[in-house]
Amino acid sequence: MRVLFAAPDWNRWAPALQKAAPEMELVQQAEPASIDAIIYAPGGEIDDLSPYVNARLVQSLWAGVERIVTNPTLTQPLARMVDPGLAMGMAEYCTGWVMRAHLGMDRYRQDGEWRNETAPPLAKNRNVTILGMGELGRSVAAMLRGIGFQITGYSASGRPVDGVEVMGAAHLDRALSRGEILINLLPDTPETHGLLNADTLGKLPRGAWLINPGRGTVLDDDALLAALDGGQVAHAVLDVFKNEPLPADHPFWSHPGVTVTPHIAAETRADTAAPVAVENIRRALSGQPVLHLVDREKGY
Amino acid sequence: MRVLFAAPDWNRWAPALQKAAPEMELVQQAEPASIDAIIYAPGGEIDDLSPYVNARLVQSLWAGVERIVTNPTLTQPLARMVDPGLAMGMAEYCTGWVMRAHLGMDRYRQDGEWRNETAPPLAKNRNVTILGMGELGRSVAAMLRGIGFQITGYSASGRPVDGVEVMGAAHLDRALSRGEILINLLPDTPETHGLLNADTLGKLPRGAWLINPGRGTVLDDDALLAALDGGQVAHAVLDVFKNEPLPADHPFWSHPGVTVTPHIAAETRADTAAPVAVENIRRALSGQPVLHLVDREKGY
Repeated sequence: MRVLFAAPDWNRWAPALQKAAPEMELVQQAEPASIDAIIYAPGGEIDDLSPYVNARLVQSLWAGVERIVTNPTLTQPLARMVDPGLAMGMAEYCTGWVMRAHLGMDRYRQDGEWRNETAPPLAKNRNVTILGMGELGRSVAAMLRGIGFQITGYSASGRPVDGVEVMGAAHLDRALSRGEILINLLPDTPETHGLLNADTLGKLPRGAWLINPGRGTVLDDDALLAALDGGQVAHAVLDVFKNEPLPADHPFWSHPGVTVTPHIAAETRADTAAPVAVENIRRALSGQPVLHLVDREKGY
Repeated sequence: MRVLFAAPDWNRWAPALQKAAPEMELVQQAEPASIDAIIYAPGGEIDDLSPYVNARLVQSLWAGVERIVTNPTLTQPLARMVDPGLAMGMAEYCTGWVMRAHLGMDRYRQDGEWRNETAPPLAKNRNVTILGMGELGRSVAAMLRGIGFQITGYSASGRPVDGVEVMGAAHLDRALSRGEILINLLPDTPETHGLLNADTLGKLPRGAWLINPGRGTVLDDDALLAALDGGQVAHAVLDVFKNEPLPADHPFWSHPGVTVTPHIAAETRADTAAPVAVENIRRALSGQPVLHLVDREKGY
């Protein structure tokens, strides 16, 4: 099998991919019609996929596929990356920032004054609302439940998830109203665009925390800044943005109520993702069902 | 049954205690010989326990009993508080600060520069060493294991704990050498006094984090400051101190490598602790074995 690597970071990926499939001929360029499958991530050198007429699969290295699913030259089946390491990393990122919010860590100013404060409520008395109950949302929910948090989920489908009360599209307001800590993991689709706006942020309990490691397009930046200034949102931890890197003059950088992290929450880890990509390519080439196939109409 | 409340915070405790035992006569003073049991915490108005000749139990509201076990007027059996809420709160505190260390949260300076950094290792590739494997240590270990961390435990006895490799007294160095993140939950005893000193801090992996929600006496303050200045310890989160409140001029307040929290990790919560105290007093008065009895020789 001859596989085209159409992604950046060859030096990071090639060893892990070759280790997962020593028999695979992994190339950065070749006669397009000779390519059996394509491994893709944004930022590589190949954007026109039309010459790869014999490729049976485009396997994304990213969980988010909005930058490839809209490519008009994409005619091959497209699969998202569901990297077990990525889901774990995302769960750890969210858990860390949820705990920072939950414990009120930022109260402890190192100013020499011993403040006799009340302990925060136990996690079992705190609700975290998670928007988006896909692989990542479920992984985050499971880790937070392990600590004891009450979890409210939201997804367009409202499909049940073990141990989580999942609200469907008609009950977004109710899910938001419980979100003392709100995590956005919704995919980037026309329906989710700007979903976190002045109206929906206003539905959160006053003083809520927002953690957005999902998609920058889901958030109305100006509405968040206004909600922070008015105290409706206490703090926002943002990992994704409409433009990345976040421009140096964007007000998020200097707002005291915002923590910017550089799109680090959902780092795909080569050692755990490469075997998944290889397994899926093998499936495609042997006619077995491909995992995590993207529904082109839904966009994810 | 007539129970003396010899502790501060009457307004916080009395409702929870009366709710747990409506038949109990809870008093702040009475003819000493008429008292059946004593609920005790440091900072109350009663220090001389000798007149309470008929009290069958002194039930501490605190997990740590060093301020009562050394009281020469104490002749009654003494029980520590093992509050399920306290153990949960301690686990949550430790988990929060472990995640802050693990994720390297403090790297994210809000200075407008987008740094393309490598993701931290997954929790499953990170070791946390816990000194002290009592109720609290086991509760912390269980929560951290749920996130995926490797846990190394240390206790004087080396008694096994499910899912944790526990080192005994002869292997303290090995436990320390794995402590990328070190949590101290050792009790305050002559053996643990100053156990975290220049020598033992030097056994940690370079750049370790220290989290001390256990006892201030276990730590040699000057040795920690030197280890921080030399880079051996990257950051210390300290919740307990030899003198509390920590004096305003103590160097911990101003050292950039130290976070001071005001003895908040092990806050006993009245709603979860009161039923435990009441149950134990009932046991003592009906001649059943008392739970969490303090061994006066060991001091805990």
